[in-house]
Amino acid sequence: MIADPDFDIFHPEPLLIVISGPSGVGKDTVLQRMKERGLPFHFVVTATTRPKRPKEVNGVDYFFVSSDEFARMIEADELLEHAIVYNDYKGIPKQQVRDALASGKDVVMRIDVQGAGTIRKLEPEAVLVFLTTRNEEEMVNRLRARKTETPEGLNLRIATARQELKRVDDFDYVVVNSDFLLDETVDTIRAIIHAEHHRVHPRKVSL
Amino acid sequence: MIADPDFDIFHPEPLLIVISGPSGVGKDTVLQRMKERGLPFHFVVTATTRPKRPKEVNGVDYFFVSSDEFARMIEADELLEHAIVYNDYKGIPKQQVRDALASGKDVVMRIDVQGAGTIRKLEPEAVLVFLTTRNEEEMVNRLRARKTETPEGLNLRIATARQELKRVDDFDYVVVNSDFLLDETVDTIRAIIHAEHHRVHPRKVSL
Repeated sequence: MIADPDFDIFHPEPLLIVISGPSGVGKDTVLQRMKERGLPFHFVVTATTRPKRPKEVNGVDYFFVSSDEFARMIEADELLEHAIVYNDYKGIPKQQVRDALASGKDVVMRIDVQGAGTIRKLEPEAVLVFLTTRNEEEMVNRLRARKTETPEGLNLRIATARQELKRVDDFDYVVVNSDFLLDETVDTIRAIIHAEHHRVHPRKVSL
Repeated sequence: MIADPDFDIFHPEPLLIVISGPSGVGKDTVLQRMKERGLPFHFVVTATTRPKRPKEVNGVDYFFVSSDEFARMIEADELLEHAIVYNDYKGIPKQQVRDALASGKDVVMRIDVQGAGTIRKLEPEAVLVFLTTRNEEEMVNRLRARKTETPEGLNLRIATARQELKRVDDFDYVVVNSDFLLDETVDTIRAIIHAEHHRVHPRKVSL
């Protein structure tokens, strides 16, 4: 690449960045702050069959679709990845990711730990970031604070999160998302993306 | 590591960062700006037998030593790496690097392309950053502007730099150090170090 005088190092291959981690680590909050800060990434909108929470907006936070529509998307192979998460379906619309990468933009997607493993297999060149809390207590407190769960649902999430914490080894990077340091988390994710663009052997996503 | 509640992710293993690249890409200038910006790294002071340039300070820019003293350091195995660069010897005092790493500080060293290859073999866990210019013209102009060379010396440096540009594949990261974007270069190096500290499988330097 150095031999090509027209090569412009500041316009490298776009990256596929997966932000994952157990329930309660604050994936949504981190993504929200990244958007608020106007970072120049394409943020993937996930399709889901789960009910909309009060503050969520369709097409912005998620595409809220019916089970029938979700089934159609699976049949038509329109989803990059999909999974059942706490009895609800979530999936990444494929074309959206392709369009964003084709436009040269880095693509950032939030995805559950289970789904991140699938992405790794489908697209080994993806950059996988595992968000975690400083300790388990902080994670449990966050799940409790969410107050959208029944007691049984909460216990299920805590048990699952404990298992998911063990999956960190499958990821490229780990970032502690502490309660009062949200901007540091975002800064670290930016640094990871910045650094990845300077790899001598760049990742080439081919979806 | 997640299982250990005492693990503090913000105090990870110190890194060994090698800033390299052909003559004329501005390695010294980049290191100088990193120091001016007060970045919290240990900057290795290289020992050299070459004559001091007017603005250089002994013990700060280099340790300027006699050929006899350099020979003694080689014999006593006090150098991590040493090489002949344009008829002068340069070497990295080993103990200095060990002391800095032991204190938990990331160690940054500037080293010629030839020496970076040696470091890679001695310490595979080092982070190797290759500085380059946007194109060859910019590199040649910088070498000319230095005005510390005879015409023959300049031609030798240009020829060597051309060869060294081909060694980029042996490095981890490549950073274009453009003339008017010195702070961007430093920001990128910082991002690389920041990101490296968040690798799930951290590099462990064992010198």
